[in-house]
Amino acid sequence: MSNILAINAGSSSLKFQLIRMPEEQVLAKGLLERIGLSESVFTMEVNGEKDKMVLDIPDHEIAVKHLLEKLTSSGVIQSMDEIDAVGHRIVHGGERFSDSVLITDDVIQNIEDVSDLAPLHNPANLTGIRAFRRLLPNVPMVAVFDTAFHQTMPEKSYLYSLPYEYYEKYGIRKYGFHGTSHKYVSQRAADLMGVPLEQLRLISCHLGNGASIAAIDKGQSIDTSMGFTPLAGVTMGTRSGNIDPALIPFIMEKTGKNADEVVHVLNKKSGMLALSGFSSDLRDIEQKTDENERAELALEVFAARIHKYLGSYAARMSGVDAIIFTAGVGENSEVVRKKVLTGLEFMGVYWDPSRNHVRGKEAFINYPHSPVKVMVIPTNEEVMIARDTVRLTGK
Amino acid sequence: MSNILAINAGSSSLKFQLIRMPEEQVLAKGLLERIGLSESVFTMEVNGEKDKMVLDIPDHEIAVKHLLEKLTSSGVIQSMDEIDAVGHRIVHGGERFSDSVLITDDVIQNIEDVSDLAPLHNPANLTGIRAFRRLLPNVPMVAVFDTAFHQTMPEKSYLYSLPYEYYEKYGIRKYGFHGTSHKYVSQRAADLMGVPLEQLRLISCHLGNGASIAAIDKGQSIDTSMGFTPLAGVTMGTRSGNIDPALIPFIMEKTGKNADEVVHVLNKKSGMLALSGFSSDLRDIEQKTDENERAELALEVFAARIHKYLGSYAARMSGVDAIIFTAGVGENSEVVRKKVLTGLEFMGVYWDPSRNHVRGKEAFINYPHSPVKVMVIPTNEEVMIARDTVRLTGK
Repeated sequence: MSNILAINAGSSSLKFQLIRMPEEQVLAKGLLERIGLSESVFTMEVNGEKDKMVLDIPDHEIAVKHLLEKLTSSGVIQSMDEIDAVGHRIVHGGERFSDSVLITDDVIQNIEDVSDLAPLHNPANLTGIRAFRRLLPNVPMVAVFDTAFHQTMPEKSYLYSLPYEYYEKYGIRKYGFHGTSHKYVSQRAADLMGVPLEQLRLISCHLGNGASIAAIDKGQSIDTSMGFTPLAGVTMGTRSGNIDPALIPFIMEKTGKNADEVVHVLNKKSGMLALSGFSSDLRDIEQKTDENERAELALEVFAARIHKYLGSYAARMSGVDAIIFTAGVGENSEVVRKKVLTGLEFMGVYWDPSRNHVRGKEAFINYPHSPVKVMVIPTNEEVMIARDTVRLTGK
Repeated sequence: MSNILAINAGSSSLKFQLIRMPEEQVLAKGLLERIGLSESVFTMEVNGEKDKMVLDIPDHEIAVKHLLEKLTSSGVIQSMDEIDAVGHRIVHGGERFSDSVLITDDVIQNIEDVSDLAPLHNPANLTGIRAFRRLLPNVPMVAVFDTAFHQTMPEKSYLYSLPYEYYEKYGIRKYGFHGTSHKYVSQRAADLMGVPLEQLRLISCHLGNGASIAAIDKGQSIDTSMGFTPLAGVTMGTRSGNIDPALIPFIMEKTGKNADEVVHVLNKKSGMLALSGFSSDLRDIEQKTDENERAELALEVFAARIHKYLGSYAARMSGVDAIIFTAGVGENSEVVRKKVLTGLEFMGVYWDPSRNHVRGKEAFINYPHSPVKVMVIPTNEEVMIARDTVRLTGK
């Protein structure tokens, strides 16, 4: 029995869950926000009870100090010694990490080396690692990468049709993201189906504010919709997904923006927000579809893109055995699932409208006779981090 | 009975076919190259006999003069009066043209107005129109647009997930290209199947040096792989197709190129050329696949992208009745068709290896029992131009 702290450190935030293993029981979870800004906020939830504090948190080390003190002072643990290991979510592992790894000086250096590929995320993730290393120097730590699960993609999936030296010199290729989530739901799907993962062709739809689709053949990711960065693929909350790349200089010329500014628009001011004209949040959009054409349009575009990926990835695997919906939208939006699934009978998908009402819990939503199963599976990246941390630390 | 001249004018070239209608018989065809450069070349073929001349052709008007003189002097026609109408291929019709149109001053103005969207092509096409207007002022002329056939796409297909004002102000949307070819082969497919086009769901694969896939539902294009420009979609001879748009500023930073230069690389130095490392021509690449890994890789990437579009567009139409291969590669490459078609049984595609040897002629290459038909259909854009010219001029 051990207590694992699963950490997701952003540039001004730190999310955590303290998980008892192997029971996978969440002892405490929460968020420290506005780190380095005024009026930082620390929220923690224990046994369904939430606690919120406004504090001074000038940096991540102080954030970790607050966290450790709070965990002991609130009685969740008796002392810091009861934290057996820490698992850190790292966005980008480049081509160096195809699995989670025990954190060493070398590993930290390697994560730094690929920071170029995720300049906003990896440095923030490293800040979290460094803070914990200083405060819990004797506790083993593990890095769990968003990209690792997709390292099984073959060359024909991950190579862009660009000058080959761009790949060799600059690491330009498809990496894919949400790997921890896609891996979790694919394992869970196999469990729920009672079929070994090694016998299944799965399409996993991680649909949240960010969204990605993965083709998972025999437990291995063989293709995914995100690319070199999380901008590519389907329409997302504020991200455009794929566009004609020639649009970038055209938009630059028309708007006077530089390339970075245009890509900022593509990342932050596009997607559902741009299509609807009022919100990046699918819940807001769904409420307005009756009265607002642009809301309906946003929903149609979003669903159509995902729908096409299902056909595409079924072709990629010569068929599909199950389709999985996960993350905020995937777990909760009956409307999106309906639009995405309609018209796939030709490939063996018979979904059941009467089962599609499910929200946020595991369920099959196909007719029993459907050759292709359709599942809603809430994702749990923290539990994957805890599992990998136990596996690699032996705790 | 009438003689129609079908014209495709580039910035330094002019392709032509003189076609007798309604027989659709090619009386003469050829090419004037290096217009405005030294040692211009005029090639013409009549009844299988080729004639090649090196001439001085300083501009398109002189090119047309040479053409008209040669057609009469060689006896193909007795006088210029025997040219009843001229049809011009125009690359971009923007949203203004959803069909071919009789050329008037207004139409010329409209083509100029959308030149912004095809700055390399529309002005060159207009040069051809103007030269013919001066030399054959009383002959009716028709403009046939590469984009027109795709104007039936619904909003959810043609809108990018970008700020909506980019569409309203700058015309940023998916237009699609190769429309004349996709339209021709879809009509031909219906004829060959003996089923009305209005009852068919077709996927047309125009695979040449440029390549695009179209989903054609009941005779109407409802989605296509090219986008705002012909850069988007699948891997092509020298074009990258879709990439993560965030790569553009990344490549700019790494290489010191500006955005236009990067898009130039994406258009001219990417695709099969970049993947193989030695040629953009699929015939060269196919010959080297046994000895050269990168040649095999190029072929794999090319075929995999098309393969995924087949699944995607089948999903788009809730199934597919026939798949069509056309243009240089589509008509001639057994290897590409094999790779593209393999593993689509789940959606009803049973192709027949023993029929797949066909090159450059109309043929079914599916097993007779296959629910989805697979066809090779040589494209004929010139005959489509001639047909539309007859339809709109009444000649």
